[in-house]
Amino acid sequence: MKAPQRILLAHGAGGRLTRELVERLFLPAFANPELEDLDDAALLPELPPGRPALTTDGHVVDPPVFAGGDLGTLSVNGTVNDLVMAGARPLWLTWAVILEEGLDGELLATCVEGARRAAEEAGVRIAAGDTKTVPRGKGDRIFAVTAGLGVVPPGRGVNDRNIAPGDAILVTGTVGDHGATIMAHRHGMESTELVSDCAALNGLLEPLWEAGVPIHALHDPTRGGVATTCNEAAARSGLRFVLDQQALPVAPPVRAVCELLGLDPFYLACEGRALVWLPEAEADRALEILRGHPLGRGSARIGEVVDSAPGHAPVEVRTVSGALRPLDLLSGMDLPRIC
Amino acid sequence: MKAPQRILLAHGAGGRLTRELVERLFLPAFANPELEDLDDAALLPELPPGRPALTTDGHVVDPPVFAGGDLGTLSVNGTVNDLVMAGARPLWLTWAVILEEGLDGELLATCVEGARRAAEEAGVRIAAGDTKTVPRGKGDRIFAVTAGLGVVPPGRGVNDRNIAPGDAILVTGTVGDHGATIMAHRHGMESTELVSDCAALNGLLEPLWEAGVPIHALHDPTRGGVATTCNEAAARSGLRFVLDQQALPVAPPVRAVCELLGLDPFYLACEGRALVWLPEAEADRALEILRGHPLGRGSARIGEVVDSAPGHAPVEVRTVSGALRPLDLLSGMDLPRIC
Repeated sequence: MKAPQRILLAHGAGGRLTRELVERLFLPAFANPELEDLDDAALLPELPPGRPALTTDGHVVDPPVFAGGDLGTLSVNGTVNDLVMAGARPLWLTWAVILEEGLDGELLATCVEGARRAAEEAGVRIAAGDTKTVPRGKGDRIFAVTAGLGVVPPGRGVNDRNIAPGDAILVTGTVGDHGATIMAHRHGMESTELVSDCAALNGLLEPLWEAGVPIHALHDPTRGGVATTCNEAAARSGLRFVLDQQALPVAPPVRAVCELLGLDPFYLACEGRALVWLPEAEADRALEILRGHPLGRGSARIGEVVDSAPGHAPVEVRTVSGALRPLDLLSGMDLPRIC
Repeated sequence: MKAPQRILLAHGAGGRLTRELVERLFLPAFANPELEDLDDAALLPELPPGRPALTTDGHVVDPPVFAGGDLGTLSVNGTVNDLVMAGARPLWLTWAVILEEGLDGELLATCVEGARRAAEEAGVRIAAGDTKTVPRGKGDRIFAVTAGLGVVPPGRGVNDRNIAPGDAILVTGTVGDHGATIMAHRHGMESTELVSDCAALNGLLEPLWEAGVPIHALHDPTRGGVATTCNEAAARSGLRFVLDQQALPVAPPVRAVCELLGLDPFYLACEGRALVWLPEAEADRALEILRGHPLGRGSARIGEVVDSAPGHAPVEVRTVSGALRPLDLLSGMDLPRIC
């Protein structure tokens, strides 16, 4: 891959330099016949049977390269996961970048390589792209916006309205690794032990579907963490979730960052974890399947679904002492530019 | 539609303010059942028969509001047109924004309303969205990235490799209105006569397909204008295009801007025009159909396709004196941030 030394405004102007950037950097990385036509739109093969699923995500993470990934990896994995959380098999992605004039070509190449590798690992193809540039001080190095197209196979379906009293709530690994990694980096608290959990989750979750596990709902606790995701799902289900503080898996270095910076791991963003709602009777079988996958070794049962009740918040945490405390939707600032 | 007075960083952090922005501004504008689920991905109805087409485009136009449109209108129309140029019927869009802290809520509301109206006029739905914020000085008011999903009906197909010697080249109206409007605005040369041609082209071009006109290729001359688009198509077709300087429709105020600023209308961006390649014998019938549509009244035959020949550039212009001059791919700067 050949990146220019510095990105110029002309690299996004649609002329010769745009073409060179596309032909030397993007095409070799994302090589596939649909993209290589470089036409106004990519023509795809017929989709497999099922309902198409469509999603989009913007990525402005700061720093753009972090332990465990980069803005390119994150943008591909985030969009793949949005499709997976809808029960879809991810198939096609688009990748559009907004580059700041003067951007180091090496940084761009790192993000392109990150996106390429993530797409390869997730088994998706990048079918279309776009490059825009903005003058110095009108952007911040690199922003990437992805869209994703997948298909929900017939017979599959997840929906928060399927969540039922008695359901178990599982998480597929330690929480907050991504958020803690980014925060520690910003505070100059580099640690070789902190690594983002950034990963595509189709490979981890597909075996649950194949085993016929009756999944009711799926979400990835990204911005706002487990707390925000659970509040949104609780509101849609009309039920109450009781989470177990002691059961929440948090890696020791993440816990250390939380204590130093006064953060609550329930609110820390993950980029490679899923929350799974399913009947309690299926929970052990599901945990066994999940723990058999490299990305799911730390899977745990972290809560249960009960009927809503007056005087109780939609999401509550059972603390070490056995008391229930409400876990509210994040208000105001989360960590800015966490993804 | 209710926009906050100013955009705060927290509006893009995934918490309560993000939710308020989505529920008060985006949802009422883009109302449709697929979007309203607000799930990780939107589940779409089964696609109609044909080949799916997928595209993406970033929009960083400066100024974000201009005569004839705004960044919202432009983002929807641009992506609709990319699908239409591939022969597809546009169906679904995604709309992701990157907002600068401090952005005037009125400006955001204007762009959302522009996108809403454009989507309504083009008959497409916005199925998914995303909001990110960046600190002051790390963005420029509003950037929007769209992706589009459409379907090429069976039996339709456009491809530059279908272009044949003897084909006529049509343009569906005056060129450069968008580019000239943006440039004039930046140079403080406001004129009530200058208006961007920003428009969705599915309504204009669909009647050609319905009439059975055998279209060989379609492109919208956006960044880099007619010259750049023709160079790209000529390279792919392996043929030579001879354009007629006198036949190129240019509105008088656009011509005036070109003369004042030293611009060549062949390189000025359009955002609502198409170039059509088709057999010469079909040109008159196609022009009649195009001129019957409000967006196609200024349609004209501007050139012809011939075999490539040694000593000739892939795209040439026949000047007023009858001489041929090469029309090269734009090198270096076009107008930055024209779309």
